[in-house]
Amino acid sequence: MKKAAGAEQSHPLFRQVYQYMHNRMERGEWKAHDKLPSIRLLAEELEVHRLTVFKAYRELTEDGRVYVKDKSGYYVSPASSPAGESAEGDGAAISSYMLANPMSDIQRMPVSYQFSQALIDPGLLPNLFLSDYVKKVFDLYPKVMGTYSSVQGDEELRGTLSRHFREQHRLQLPPRELLITSGAQQAINLIAGIVLGPMDTVLVERPTYSVAMDIFRRLGARLMPVEITPEGYDLQQVEELMRRHRPRMFYMNPTHHNPTGFTVPARQRKLMVELAERYRCLLVEDDPFRDMFFGEEPPPPFFAYDTEGWVIYISSFSKYVAPGLRICAVGCRYPFMEQLITAKSLADNGTPILNQKIFLHYYTSPRLQQHLGKLRIALQVHKEIVEEELAATGWEWTPPQGGLNLWVKLPEPISVSALFARAMEQSISFVPGEIFDPLGEMKSWLRLSYSFASEGVLREGVRRLAALAREL
Amino acid sequence: MKKAAGAEQSHPLFRQVYQYMHNRMERGEWKAHDKLPSIRLLAEELEVHRLTVFKAYRELTEDGRVYVKDKSGYYVSPASSPAGESAEGDGAAISSYMLANPMSDIQRMPVSYQFSQALIDPGLLPNLFLSDYVKKVFDLYPKVMGTYSSVQGDEELRGTLSRHFREQHRLQLPPRELLITSGAQQAINLIAGIVLGPMDTVLVERPTYSVAMDIFRRLGARLMPVEITPEGYDLQQVEELMRRHRPRMFYMNPTHHNPTGFTVPARQRKLMVELAERYRCLLVEDDPFRDMFFGEEPPPPFFAYDTEGWVIYISSFSKYVAPGLRICAVGCRYPFMEQLITAKSLADNGTPILNQKIFLHYYTSPRLQQHLGKLRIALQVHKEIVEEELAATGWEWTPPQGGLNLWVKLPEPISVSALFARAMEQSISFVPGEIFDPLGEMKSWLRLSYSFASEGVLREGVRRLAALAREL
Repeated sequence: MKKAAGAEQSHPLFRQVYQYMHNRMERGEWKAHDKLPSIRLLAEELEVHRLTVFKAYRELTEDGRVYVKDKSGYYVSPASSPAGESAEGDGAAISSYMLANPMSDIQRMPVSYQFSQALIDPGLLPNLFLSDYVKKVFDLYPKVMGTYSSVQGDEELRGTLSRHFREQHRLQLPPRELLITSGAQQAINLIAGIVLGPMDTVLVERPTYSVAMDIFRRLGARLMPVEITPEGYDLQQVEELMRRHRPRMFYMNPTHHNPTGFTVPARQRKLMVELAERYRCLLVEDDPFRDMFFGEEPPPPFFAYDTEGWVIYISSFSKYVAPGLRICAVGCRYPFMEQLITAKSLADNGTPILNQKIFLHYYTSPRLQQHLGKLRIALQVHKEIVEEELAATGWEWTPPQGGLNLWVKLPEPISVSALFARAMEQSISFVPGEIFDPLGEMKSWLRLSYSFASEGVLREGVRRLAALAREL
Repeated sequence: MKKAAGAEQSHPLFRQVYQYMHNRMERGEWKAHDKLPSIRLLAEELEVHRLTVFKAYRELTEDGRVYVKDKSGYYVSPASSPAGESAEGDGAAISSYMLANPMSDIQRMPVSYQFSQALIDPGLLPNLFLSDYVKKVFDLYPKVMGTYSSVQGDEELRGTLSRHFREQHRLQLPPRELLITSGAQQAINLIAGIVLGPMDTVLVERPTYSVAMDIFRRLGARLMPVEITPEGYDLQQVEELMRRHRPRMFYMNPTHHNPTGFTVPARQRKLMVELAERYRCLLVEDDPFRDMFFGEEPPPPFFAYDTEGWVIYISSFSKYVAPGLRICAVGCRYPFMEQLITAKSLADNGTPILNQKIFLHYYTSPRLQQHLGKLRIALQVHKEIVEEELAATGWEWTPPQGGLNLWVKLPEPISVSALFARAMEQSISFVPGEIFDPLGEMKSWLRLSYSFASEGVLREGVRRLAALAREL
């Protein structure tokens, strides 16, 4: 059995009490050397168990924010700017990234060799053709700028996507079972907000998309990892986790998985859906890389095997159609759809109609299929450039069958965090593997995104990165 | 003193436990006539006080979902589809709207006389001119469809808005203190998600924007009402609330307030900011109607009086520039901005760049000022049509100096809920006042939005509505 990830990192009740007290100190309501309320008093005020308050006080004491005087109680420490452990050597450069949203912080750094963004090189997108479609949209809908979308999304677009899903992927998704969001990330955020509360368990792949973990932890959920390998999941492990912990959902990205590139095989998909039904665990299937395969088409989505409504399908087109539009479709059954519509209405009251209409007209054009064919070839060429440059390094990876990333293991003596610090100095970025690990381990791994840099930049940057690693 | 609104409606801890148990029953983990865990056991499992679990069980018992057998414990009721109180008479039509998001549900109903949407008639927006600006955007930024925005928002747009705020409203807001969201609603949702947690108090105007209340309640916050009148707030009441309840924020819409149209006078604005500083209560100033005044320009925003960072300014342009774009700017100081950027990065990773660029170029054009001038006149004409039609009814209102709504009080014998039911049958929609009331009262009030329907439809619809009321 895996140990429960996020037991410390996530936000159990005592963490919430910690935060509550911390906030009141930060706001100056409790000042240096003030006496704090007793455990009994605070437990009553907040309607929590005394043990919970005790844990919060213990944590505050350990963090140097509170001190204990004799037996008389707890007091606020003076100027409790948290001293923090002094970083050991080259770890310092990373630890400063680890605070808020490390993924986004790394990606925000301007560098010459950008391998941390799992995005398509804008030069590979059909920008000029898209402009034409935009003009078409304004001729067709002269009042498009003056109107809101319905909360669930433009009806014409949902109708088109419904046909697309039926014809391309044999998914039965009538328009009323589709909702349009602004990107996959909004979809994950809305779904998690509905499903997860404090004390709930959520399964995540190990490794997984780090921003999803941030979202789940912010909701107070407990994360449990499910290993993903080139062979998929260990179904016995999954069943055991479901049986013992009754997770409310499993967030998965089973096709050209980010960051590993692995694809869960077809035979497991059906079995997993059965497990989901049996243990009443929602499968939240994030599927943005399906169309970016190099050889064979991947197996059908988990959603295709679902008859009871236990799979939610997130189909994002942001990556390869037009990132600037941020269009994503969520497919799910009622009554969940009703909850999703409410959540979307509170979050932003509907995705901008303009974006939906532009997407619609481009998406139904013959240009899209041509573009996709070219994009697949370009990505495969990119991937092979990286593999060539890394061939002599002793680094290990499983060649991906699609997607945007190479998930690489460095040989033992090289420290990824040391390499990361050196690489950033040389204007090369990638994402250290531990950021994707719900357990915060995987310190020998890193993710190299080969999709964003142009071919020349990619080759030169990877060569430099390999040289840096040799120096270490 | 007002009583605490939302004490029942919001989500204190026992409500969360209630929800947790309810979910497990819904999911069939606990079936009809199953014995439920003891109070002691569940309190330990969930790390909460026994009294909290006891309250949850009592509530479940009262709701008929759980029954008690002798002294042996709690059991799941069979087929506990909640019977619900049978609605009294014409209240039935409303009560079905009251479930998820009543505001959005009412607005979703297609009607001939649409007075429930506080939106501008799309015919009043400069749609053709906007199309031209879109084409300009594609000439200027050929790769705009292929790129993401930064999380905080396009730098060029933030620069332009920074100048606008300085020149038009004398607000000092450098670009780094501005963040772009997709509409004001996303801004409220993100800010509330940062500031409010379970057990926190939030002040809201009475009446107020109902979706904001839904957002705060979902976060488990406790709502306290502050009356808003044509003279503004009762500052003594506000100070008393701040002193006693230490609210973390006050959500306000002090300029051409929705739904009442009231504007808080200048002299109160400075004093309120001082109160906010003294009691460390964030003022979240939602300001979408500032530019829609009929006579004099309104007083400066609260934000203009703030020197210590206790006001967050939400400036939405969705209403009158181009609703289809959904562009809103949030102004606030550091360190709050850092938290807002993180929240935005988790919510959707940045507003679509296309929308920001189109808005930017239209907004800086001379057309916008012309458009605004015309729009003000059109809205005033709309308002006067409604006032003429209602002149002989005995309904009461304070003539608004700006905004999109008339806030109307019906004479005692007429029931607004009865009128609402009849109006919907006649394809006329408005919003019953109680939806805006944190206390769920104000049952003699209603909001009539005069901005969306064209002049002829407006006159005819209001005439019919008045006739319906006479019949009652």
